[in-house]
Amino acid sequence: MTDTNEKLNFSCDYLEGAHERILKRLSETNLQKMDGYGYDPCSESARARIREACSCPKAEVQFLIGGTQANAVMIDAMLQSYQGVISASSGHVNVHEAGAIEAGGHKVLALPQHNGKIAVSDLERYLTDFEQDSNRDHMVMPGMVYLSQPTEYGTLYTLQELEAIHDLCHSHQVKLYVDGARLAYALASPANDVTLLDLARLCDAFYIGGTKCGALIGEAVVVPEPDTIPHLFTIIKQHGALLAKGRLTGIQFDELFRDGLYFTIGKSAVDYAGQIQKALTEKGYRLLFESPTNQVYLIVPDDKLPALGEAVVYSFWEKYDEAHTVIRLSTSWASTQEEVERLISIL
Amino acid sequence: MTDTNEKLNFSCDYLEGAHERILKRLSETNLQKMDGYGYDPCSESARARIREACSCPKAEVQFLIGGTQANAVMIDAMLQSYQGVISASSGHVNVHEAGAIEAGGHKVLALPQHNGKIAVSDLERYLTDFEQDSNRDHMVMPGMVYLSQPTEYGTLYTLQELEAIHDLCHSHQVKLYVDGARLAYALASPANDVTLLDLARLCDAFYIGGTKCGALIGEAVVVPEPDTIPHLFTIIKQHGALLAKGRLTGIQFDELFRDGLYFTIGKSAVDYAGQIQKALTEKGYRLLFESPTNQVYLIVPDDKLPALGEAVVYSFWEKYDEAHTVIRLSTSWASTQEEVERLISIL
Amino acid sequence: MTDTNEKLNFSCDYLEGAHERILKRLSETNLQKMDGYGYDPCSESARARIREACSCPKAEVQFLIGGTQANAVMIDAMLQSYQGVISASSGHVNVHEAGAIEAGGHKVLALPQHNGKIAVSDLERYLTDFEQDSNRDHMVMPGMVYLSQPTEYGTLYTLQELEAIHDLCHSHQVKLYVDGARLAYALASPANDVTLLDLARLCDAFYIGGTKCGALIGEAVVVPEPDTIPHLFTIIKQHGALLAKGRLTGIQFDELFRDGLYFTIGKSAVDYAGQIQKALTEKGYRLLFESPTNQVYLIVPDDKLPALGEAVVYSFWEKYDEAHTVIRLSTSWASTQEEVERLISIL
Amino acid sequence: MTDTNEKLNFSCDYLEGAHERILKRLSETNLQKMDGYGYDPCSESARARIREACSCPKAEVQFLIGGTQANAVMIDAMLQSYQGVISASSGHVNVHEAGAIEAGGHKVLALPQHNGKIAVSDLERYLTDFEQDSNRDHMVMPGMVYLSQPTEYGTLYTLQELEAIHDLCHSHQVKLYVDGARLAYALASPANDVTLLDLARLCDAFYIGGTKCGALIGEAVVVPEPDTIPHLFTIIKQHGALLAKGRLTGIQFDELFRDGLYFTIGKSAVDYAGQIQKALTEKGYRLLFESPTNQVYLIVPDDKLPALGEAVVYSFWEKYDEAHTVIRLSTSWASTQEEVERLISIL
Repeated sequence: MTDTNEKLNFSCDYLEGAHERILKRLSETNLQKMDGYGYDPCSESARARIREACSCPKAEVQFLIGGTQANAVMIDAMLQSYQGVISASSGHVNVHEAGAIEAGGHKVLALPQHNGKIAVSDLERYLTDFEQDSNRDHMVMPGMVYLSQPTEYGTLYTLQELEAIHDLCHSHQVKLYVDGARLAYALASPANDVTLLDLARLCDAFYIGGTKCGALIGEAVVVPEPDTIPHLFTIIKQHGALLAKGRLTGIQFDELFRDGLYFTIGKSAVDYAGQIQKALTEKGYRLLFESPTNQVYLIVPDDKLPALGEAVVYSFWEKYDEAHTVIRLSTSWASTQEEVERLISIL
Repeated sequence: MTDTNEKLNFSCDYLEGAHERILKRLSETNLQKMDGYGYDPCSESARARIREACSCPKAEVQFLIGGTQANAVMIDAMLQSYQGVISASSGHVNVHEAGAIEAGGHKVLALPQHNGKIAVSDLERYLTDFEQDSNRDHMVMPGMVYLSQPTEYGTLYTLQELEAIHDLCHSHQVKLYVDGARLAYALASPANDVTLLDLARLCDAFYIGGTKCGALIGEAVVVPEPDTIPHLFTIIKQHGALLAKGRLTGIQFDELFRDGLYFTIGKSAVDYAGQIQKALTEKGYRLLFESPTNQVYLIVPDDKLPALGEAVVYSFWEKYDEAHTVIRLSTSWASTQEEVERLISIL
Repeated sequence: MTDTNEKLNFSCDYLEGAHERILKRLSETNLQKMDGYGYDPCSESARARIREACSCPKAEVQFLIGGTQANAVMIDAMLQSYQGVISASSGHVNVHEAGAIEAGGHKVLALPQHNGKIAVSDLERYLTDFEQDSNRDHMVMPGMVYLSQPTEYGTLYTLQELEAIHDLCHSHQVKLYVDGARLAYALASPANDVTLLDLARLCDAFYIGGTKCGALIGEAVVVPEPDTIPHLFTIIKQHGALLAKGRLTGIQFDELFRDGLYFTIGKSAVDYAGQIQKALTEKGYRLLFESPTNQVYLIVPDDKLPALGEAVVYSFWEKYDEAHTVIRLSTSWASTQEEVERLISIL
Repeated sequence: MTDTNEKLNFSCDYLEGAHERILKRLSETNLQKMDGYGYDPCSESARARIREACSCPKAEVQFLIGGTQANAVMIDAMLQSYQGVISASSGHVNVHEAGAIEAGGHKVLALPQHNGKIAVSDLERYLTDFEQDSNRDHMVMPGMVYLSQPTEYGTLYTLQELEAIHDLCHSHQVKLYVDGARLAYALASPANDVTLLDLARLCDAFYIGGTKCGALIGEAVVVPEPDTIPHLFTIIKQHGALLAKGRLTGIQFDELFRDGLYFTIGKSAVDYAGQIQKALTEKGYRLLFESPTNQVYLIVPDDKLPALGEAVVYSFWEKYDEAHTVIRLSTSWASTQEEVERLISIL
């Protein structure tokens, strides 16, 4: 489909529509009459498949339509009105949601980010300090921890880290929530050791990203212990997040979790990101860090940027120093070997 | 596609997926790389077509994904923090949005409904009384009027009524917003005399419904004078209502407004609703009122309900009296003549 | 203190400062150093006295500074984010708090008022209908009932009514909250049969009004079962309702509940209101209804209003018919027999 | 009044009631009937005096009852729903208001603090970076700058700094608000060069603190250009911040601004803080920094803390290093020379 004269585009992982299997299912089911609001058979089937993939038969699964929405709804659903959410300073909820969390009345309590991650030791100190602060009743009580897996930098929490964070949360009576907007790329990464089962075991809630992982639209929120969040359906409606045609997300997740598609859909993207990193390193480029998923952070001399910009759409990340810039190159489930090779040859 | 043995379903107007032309466009464009957040060429084209259909070249057009969301975002965008929104007591914002408007901090100021509509005289009295109330500074200031066209009862404001409401709003410095979730059915009704141009001329904002009018999902918000709502994009993001893949709604509205599809897509549904009303009246049924659009409100003796429920999925509306019940039968863009005839023969 | 040439003022019950015993205690304690935020010995003593007066030794007592604030804080503290509060349409929270409840995200669910009161039967029907509504998950769930005692009309719930409302709340898992802005006038009324002990037994929370009952400022919130509202202190702080100098309200309520002052402070006002009603009825005036507390609602021929306004400051309530107006005359703890007699002689 | 055997208390500046002149005025006016909600003659007189003290004849002046409340109300009143407020990380709104600002829907955008102050250069970089960020429409737009004068550390912005911040705000279309909870101590400091006239000239709004400066309770909000915040009265009511007996704050500020009391009431406290700092430095103690107002930050060896705690109530501030702790000692308008001398002799 790509024209070799066309400009390459590695600016993000939501450039295309949906995986062809999804479009096919949408077409096949189009004229079937289905109940609204997620009570259709496709949504029910998708829920069953996701519960099975998480080995969590009683989990509540709800389908929302974007990461900011999922985060705003779930954080509001999980926190008491006077609680805040702990996040890495680079967390999506802290910087790129236009204040959606605060609009729900909750403070984002930012901890330093380390390649996008919260350090377990920082979290422990924060929770302990809060409890020992004589002014704590005048402060925002931390009610939950927000992590993203992979993070906004494409990095991964290890199972050991996730368990340590879970244990801290548990002992301090703080909930744990994971934003999996790009979860398929984590699950497809050889460097990853956190499974869906681990997330279901360790989190109070998490979401499985669809929009950036092959769906047209949609995120699947999973609540392993539904009793902990009563009336989630109404909370979703209250946030304007309930789809009348729930089938739209149900059909897509039903397909993504049929035959394990979700577990393989990110593989090529992670593989391509690896190829790009290997090739560029060999060519003398420096990486901000080695990325285990589908986002590559490259340190580029500023004088090379104009030519690069002619050939490739990339994403500006930040200034590195006086003479260098960090750019982000994203692969996706729709990236092709040909595009990757053209990118490498250009760089 | 329907099996003659299959139970008929007239319970609502969002039972199917999308109009076939929309699915086709989604397929054709699927692998084209497009910018996110509504900056794609399909969204831009859709905007241009909608502006043209409204004869409003400078209008801002934004695509959201459901009626409750559109209402919550726009009411929040248009009101000051201390203002409320006037609605008919039967208005969607007052009864069926799970408190989404109040979650944004705004009171819904309910006026009596008359077959789903606000009476101009009630509105005038309310606005005048508020201004003359010596306690008005202790009360919620009315900041806008919310109407739905068609209303939740399928009824229509006449152009004369809409102009009178507009004039009242203007003279009392109150904004006017119209919820067009089912607007295609209004535009297709022979009884309707309010055009898109009228809405653009008389409203501070309104939305053109897609979800119930042939789209998979999506509502197009139109702001005729964009300067009156600065930073609407950020407000949408803050509400978790911004689609990363804006193309999804852009493509659909681009197709709905190509060749005037939106103006014809509701015609068969309105026609079928008319057939149903005519036939049933002849058979001796009573209507709650004669409906000009696609929703029929039928007064049914309670002893006939069980048999009816065997054959048709309908929507319970309210008890009429001791021995009768009001039910709602909805047709849609996807209804067929055959279904309508089967329904009539059953009733 | 009043000059016989001075215009009488029966416009409300917060025209003066504080009861002299309160001013005296403020002076006596003025230079004592006390801890802030309600941890001072006077606040602790006041709490102990109120707990004793309610026979509720474990109750949490917090001092706030006004009715709207107390209502907004407590409703927010008692409701889940997706719940609303049931109120008479004439309830203070519904009409005269400038949207403070909605600013906290909660809808006020208005029931018809009968001389300011909710009818038990209306409440029962509302709760039952909600539970049976198939769309209830799309609606605002009623989470509590708000009553005022006396009501905004000065009327009183009987113990039987309060118990019936409590039973309904209990069986429908809805909380009960009573706004006692003018509670001293209820407690002082011969017509009243609801004691502080009853309130403590039947309510999930209520407040004992100070501002209109002899204090400079302050309302005492009582939560009989503190475990039901954890972190109330922080919720108060979050609402900007925590006094650094908590002593100010502590000292006042300590005095109001010393030697039973609160139970007697309203007696003269209720007595005067009775005198006024009796005298006026004898003179041929009509009452809107016979008031059992300190607010008299009088139906006055419009042509008598100008002369009346020359002599007395009163409160306009509403138009009664073409030729009559309802006015409110309030007595208070500070009213004098002399003023009442002058009023009667003028009318 | 203080007993020489009594433990000294330098823990904060709101330990006592009110300045004796205030108590006297409360007594004198107690039985005068006055209109409610701030329409009484004392409030009007206080407003006139404050306007005159600010040389700002058209300013709107409103009386609130605490710092958190004043901040929450004014920030909500001044920001658009999608905007945030810039504050030093140590700002009261960021750490010690239990999330009151976020409860109003607004993010606190924290900048590094330098002895409690924002650096002009940090502010400039932040505003410029935001405007140049390609993702700014997905971020919280800075709508105002919050400063405290003196800061939470007792430090002062110079006039030059305040003017630079004002100029930045002006050129970036961001509002400027100053929290003057302890303003009397700034105005009384020889180190201060920012007058009330400067605040009125440079700020969009600020408040003059009463609670910590000799009043029983109360803060006076000043809006130099009232047209910029329409309906402030209603916004105050909506926040539960309107006093029925507005006289309570009106009388106090009327007295504080009569004969320039407010300008002198902090002098002794600042003088005593200077004496304490001088004496302690001579005795070999280290200060965290030299404080220009009434709060002294002392670095104390940990092994001296127990004995100190026996004799003096102080405020723990933070750990300085392994062996030292920073404590805060506050003087106030009510501190006496005798107490200061006893403190010095103990330390």
